[in-house]
Amino acid sequence: MTTITITYRIETAGSIEAMAAKIASDQSTGTFVAVPGETEELKARVAARVIAIRPLSDAAHPSWPELRAGDGQIKRADVDIAFPLDAVGTDLSALMTIAVGGVFSIRGMSGIRVVDMKLPQAFKGVYPGPQFGMAGSRRLTGVVGRPMIGTIVKPALGLRPDETAELVGELIGSGVDFIKDDEKLMSPAYSPLKERIAAIMPRLLDHEQKTGKKVMYAFGISAIDPDEMMRNHDLVLQAGGNCAVININSIGMGAMAFLRKRSGLVLHAHRNGWDVLTRHPGIGFDFKVWQQFWRLLGVDQFQINGIGVKYWEPDESFVESFDAVTTPLFDPSDCALPVAGSGQWGGQAPETYRRTGRTTDLLYLCGGGIVSHPGGPAAGVRAVTQAWEAAVADIPLDIYAKDHPELAASLEKFGSGKGE
Amino acid sequence: MTTITITYRIETAGSIEAMAAKIASDQSTGTFVAVPGETEELKARVAARVIAIRPLSDAAHPSWPELRAGDGQIKRADVDIAFPLDAVGTDLSALMTIAVGGVFSIRGMSGIRVVDMKLPQAFKGVYPGPQFGMAGSRRLTGVVGRPMIGTIVKPALGLRPDETAELVGELIGSGVDFIKDDEKLMSPAYSPLKERIAAIMPRLLDHEQKTGKKVMYAFGISAIDPDEMMRNHDLVLQAGGNCAVININSIGMGAMAFLRKRSGLVLHAHRNGWDVLTRHPGIGFDFKVWQQFWRLLGVDQFQINGIGVKYWEPDESFVESFDAVTTPLFDPSDCALPVAGSGQWGGQAPETYRRTGRTTDLLYLCGGGIVSHPGGPAAGVRAVTQAWEAAVADIPLDIYAKDHPELAASLEKFGSGKGE
Repeated sequence: MTTITITYRIETAGSIEAMAAKIASDQSTGTFVAVPGETEELKARVAARVIAIRPLSDAAHPSWPELRAGDGQIKRADVDIAFPLDAVGTDLSALMTIAVGGVFSIRGMSGIRVVDMKLPQAFKGVYPGPQFGMAGSRRLTGVVGRPMIGTIVKPALGLRPDETAELVGELIGSGVDFIKDDEKLMSPAYSPLKERIAAIMPRLLDHEQKTGKKVMYAFGISAIDPDEMMRNHDLVLQAGGNCAVININSIGMGAMAFLRKRSGLVLHAHRNGWDVLTRHPGIGFDFKVWQQFWRLLGVDQFQINGIGVKYWEPDESFVESFDAVTTPLFDPSDCALPVAGSGQWGGQAPETYRRTGRTTDLLYLCGGGIVSHPGGPAAGVRAVTQAWEAAVADIPLDIYAKDHPELAASLEKFGSGKGE
Repeated sequence: MTTITITYRIETAGSIEAMAAKIASDQSTGTFVAVPGETEELKARVAARVIAIRPLSDAAHPSWPELRAGDGQIKRADVDIAFPLDAVGTDLSALMTIAVGGVFSIRGMSGIRVVDMKLPQAFKGVYPGPQFGMAGSRRLTGVVGRPMIGTIVKPALGLRPDETAELVGELIGSGVDFIKDDEKLMSPAYSPLKERIAAIMPRLLDHEQKTGKKVMYAFGISAIDPDEMMRNHDLVLQAGGNCAVININSIGMGAMAFLRKRSGLVLHAHRNGWDVLTRHPGIGFDFKVWQQFWRLLGVDQFQINGIGVKYWEPDESFVESFDAVTTPLFDPSDCALPVAGSGQWGGQAPETYRRTGRTTDLLYLCGGGIVSHPGGPAAGVRAVTQAWEAAVADIPLDIYAKDHPELAASLEKFGSGKGE
């Protein structure tokens, strides 16, 4: 029987076996009392089944603080549950409802985290996946043999379109490959997307005509109404743009499916809000699971933090995320381009390179690390490029900086924790 | 200045004041280093500001286990931060991104929970809100003076359309006002929605013609592709149906906006997956905040668990949720009909009535509590109706049961914790 297999990390003061069986029952045929019609034949067709239990060390403290003193030892285990494909189908909202979302309500656990999901081949080809991904991003930016280097217009909020365009003009001149709106900037009254596009795009196109280099600019097109988001999308496309920032968690999976079906733009995903689903290690989702949904739906470029970020996320988690988005689900074309960002300035290049399989297939995104370089943005871009050259050549940054003054200036300003 | 005010419950081993200031800065103008352009004039226009800090007792244990031994006392406070409306606008995906979703990534906290959100009048009329709500649900079911009583087709998964229709026929005859697909049932291969509608709707229409009573049936129309969801919606509407179950978390906010704009059906929201956002009291969202988004987007009927449910949620949380969905945001018409469900059988009627302001304006949903009644579903519906009569009359159930045999049978089967 073809199945979807989900691995849950569960913790309970009760029986792990009983809890695993309860999840399988609750999330398929069961309810709180036996009902007529839940026959053995029906169960055989659609019931989820526990196929493996791998005990883990006890928890020192319950993840959800629902247990009372004296509730005893908190047992943990990884539990594999197989859902018949026939019971779920290939619809991602059904999969989310049945096998993922529903489990967090179950009583008697003090934590549950969805740590793996194995989809059968039946899902292959059902969803469009990324339209551009790594290859398309390289083709559109013309960057080969090194990471694409990107920056973010800052301050995040408050600039009017002409002020933004002024900054963008400076950034274009810096040699950067990619520029984006901060994810918080969409279409507020002081900077309507239409006006921002009108102010920015001529500069990008002018630069392309003069130099042959087209800087990829990701406009914040997210809107709660998918029709409006599509109008935003069309404005960018009609003006000659090729990329958009999508706040995937804020718009949700359905709106992403809607957009991807109609999209001509590279879809750059910002996952703001995701942290609440993953930050507690005993609760929620591993990114490895969650990103599968979004890649199937069509994310081209996936922001996944980076080494030494300004946020809570530990480096190890970034490394796992990088591995996740670059591991094919069914085909190499379904991978997303990893986007390393947050507090980046080049100093993290050697460790990023070393820990992600010595690849330069990424978009390396620096906000303040480029625009606040003492020599200005162009020097900032050169510094980041130099840091990556050093990383690939296995030359320590401080050595490479001796005859690369822009990198030296970055080390001076952002190094040794000064970037924080 | 018109503002959106969000209250965050934060915990940190550092300074509460510094953390509050950091949230306000990170979620509006700031980045990790000072950047040119973050002028005082710009900050005055768009920067978020901390307007109140109300200290709480220390936490005994960090919500996110990121703190190390020796990190010291864990301070907590409720912090009000005001976001200028000009900086955010009224788009709900912008609001979610800027003021809610983004905050969970911030380092240096061991927990943050969004516990209140006050939207200014500028949001009034921007979103459609519920199309039917309580009044529309009463009008369509013809129920006055008592709660609408509903049930769920069980087993949750696995029945083929003709088997479902057979059960539904029995349930229609029971006198119930409302029937729904289990939220896990959408359109799997063994029960395509189109065939399920074709099997069920004639029975509902036939019953209406014979008795004048139209039972509201909520079909599971959720689909990851909003276009497909709309086709599902249209199938229900064209067949004479008037209600649909929407797995709001699985489809996401954008798809809900898309559906509501085009909908002719009562939208019955199931919030599966929500628990992960709220179950840890130090992390995530209060329902009070989260439900505002969905009500503005157009939820008519909101499942909010109930008293003595089979899930983790405590009764107090249900009572607060009931209060939340029935408190106007801008106008009484923007309230959703509260749907009490999960493990209900009538025994919870007195406490539900007493703790929710002695109202009968709700949909009271019993799955096994009706279909597993020893006398069959019709006796189950009578038992639930009797329980509500007793609740409203302030007569203890065991007294009322003396001359109401169906209620007596329910008490015997489900009472004293036997329903678990």
